[in-house]
Amino acid sequence: MAENKQVIFKGYIDRSPTETDMELRINKVELKVPKGSGAFLVKNLYLSCDPYMRGRMRDFHGSYLPPFVPGQALEGFGVSKVVDSDNPNFKPDDLVSGITGWEEYSLIQKPLQLRKILQHDIPLSYYLGLLGMPGFTAYAGFYEVCSPKKGEYVFVSAASGAVGQLVGQFAKLLGCYVVGSAGSSQKVDLLKNKLRFDEAFNYKEESDLDAALKRYFPQGIDIYFDNVGGDMLDAALVNMRIHGRIAVCGMVSLDSLSKPKGIFNLSNLIMKRIRMQGFLQSDYLHLYPQFLEYIVSNYKQGKIVYIEDMNEGLESAPAALAGLFSGKNVGKKVVRIVHE
Amino acid sequence: MAENKQVIFKGYIDRSPTETDMELRINKVELKVPKGSGAFLVKNLYLSCDPYMRGRMRDFHGSYLPPFVPGQALEGFGVSKVVDSDNPNFKPDDLVSGITGWEEYSLIQKPLQLRKILQHDIPLSYYLGLLGMPGFTAYAGFYEVCSPKKGEYVFVSAASGAVGQLVGQFAKLLGCYVVGSAGSSQKVDLLKNKLRFDEAFNYKEESDLDAALKRYFPQGIDIYFDNVGGDMLDAALVNMRIHGRIAVCGMVSLDSLSKPKGIFNLSNLIMKRIRMQGFLQSDYLHLYPQFLEYIVSNYKQGKIVYIEDMNEGLESAPAALAGLFSGKNVGKKVVRIVHE
Repeated sequence: MAENKQVIFKGYIDRSPTETDMELRINKVELKVPKGSGAFLVKNLYLSCDPYMRGRMRDFHGSYLPPFVPGQALEGFGVSKVVDSDNPNFKPDDLVSGITGWEEYSLIQKPLQLRKILQHDIPLSYYLGLLGMPGFTAYAGFYEVCSPKKGEYVFVSAASGAVGQLVGQFAKLLGCYVVGSAGSSQKVDLLKNKLRFDEAFNYKEESDLDAALKRYFPQGIDIYFDNVGGDMLDAALVNMRIHGRIAVCGMVSLDSLSKPKGIFNLSNLIMKRIRMQGFLQSDYLHLYPQFLEYIVSNYKQGKIVYIEDMNEGLESAPAALAGLFSGKNVGKKVVRIVHE
Repeated sequence: MAENKQVIFKGYIDRSPTETDMELRINKVELKVPKGSGAFLVKNLYLSCDPYMRGRMRDFHGSYLPPFVPGQALEGFGVSKVVDSDNPNFKPDDLVSGITGWEEYSLIQKPLQLRKILQHDIPLSYYLGLLGMPGFTAYAGFYEVCSPKKGEYVFVSAASGAVGQLVGQFAKLLGCYVVGSAGSSQKVDLLKNKLRFDEAFNYKEESDLDAALKRYFPQGIDIYFDNVGGDMLDAALVNMRIHGRIAVCGMVSLDSLSKPKGIFNLSNLIMKRIRMQGFLQSDYLHLYPQFLEYIVSNYKQGKIVYIEDMNEGLESAPAALAGLFSGKNVGKKVVRIVHE
């Protein structure tokens, strides 16, 4: 038996989470897996903070993922090391990534939720971002949903985030003109100087988002990769070009599902024959191998970079998650639980 | 020279038109076309009242059609007979359909706006509906935008209108389950008993549109063909199934572009991976020959019916157009200018 520190989900909310919606608890864990269970036990090394997790904090059972269980540890993407296994596909010391618990040790009873890490010359935490769900979201969303063409005008919101920073780089690799929006001058600087966006702006400094988009896209937007919804989506709708495409990836600005903000400019969909499409990366998993090849190749050639924002210690995880919704993170938010 | 009664556009509005936004005027017209002009003169037989015409009454130049010119006659789709011609492709007594003036005689200076009517065993006025822009809108919207499959659950709003009544019949021909909404019990009756919808309801009698849709689609909606926008679109979003499609054809509920109603449930686009697409029939004109063949064949076999709502006399045209926006029309609204 060992101690197992956990981040517990306290109860349902219908707003963005704060640190106090979670609490730390010390539990016990059996370090041996019961024989005949087919399960395996992992030690969690890195946990991923992702905006979609807010959806699992709501008392709403109609979504693609069930809500968290109040009183139990949160779940999310993680990178972990196998400690003990009753499953022939996983051996002690194997490194894995996938859905795990927000705790030091997790008993994995659904082995299909994790895959083994085979590529060992890329930082392990990148399996939560560049090579993980956010990276694959950017890949599927940009290439499969946006139908991009060389030379097109691409706008990305939350552009320095886990997904946005890659969408912009993919668009640049394809030969598009790319502008990103973000919420601080530090992020704008990263977008322009490190992530190779053509332009970037701080939306908090713009009193008129429509005017801001007209300034950066006098000829209009072909592709809007939307991570935020709300006012930015409304402004983008007005600035779309004929036959434009909007990939609806996230609505991080939408603080409450029960009192959402209205979108007012959808009549542009008709006038400009716009395709607006919501998507989830999980619908495109057949493309994961080609994604991996594309990313690893471009990363190793230095054609793609990835910015992480790393917290230290499970204790810092609640604040790290809550910070996503006020834009505190600069790049992909990851929590390191233990140095290996 | 002859007298030429005209319906004059009085001035820009940003709301749905009323009868008094137009006025009748008697003008003069030369019944001979100037030599060397390439133009031709038509006598207008039928005029079409279509919701999109509201868009041309706004002082907004960014749309796919320019605004009407205050002080001049309105324009719209019509069926006309050639009176005199300086164009080798059009001879006196030819019947034509396309864009003409809201007046007794029109000098056509853009011959490409009209095509000759070749099929003479179908009522002439049907070239404004079943075989015209609304029919082709229904065809392109349903088959090209909705990606329909046999057995799917299809919802159509403004379902007895010029477009909706055909979308429902196309969906039934393909083997879908089809429910329509409309604004009177007379229309609901037509939908169920004449247009072969599986079910229909009067949205004005529903205090909760979400509950109404749940009643008719307990398993959810695969395809929503949206002619109205607004509250019905919001309710449909909540009731869409995973991988559902929304064809955004019109937003007749949207009374004002400058003060549109908000749409609040777009987060469903992500959760359910919905594709929402605006479209215009004019992007699909390469399909017009196959549309014509499909429609004529099905119509002659009695597999498609078409409901018209005919007004008599150019004098009645302003009220006929205004009536579209309060749902006064039952079926496709047409104005007969002259009995031939």
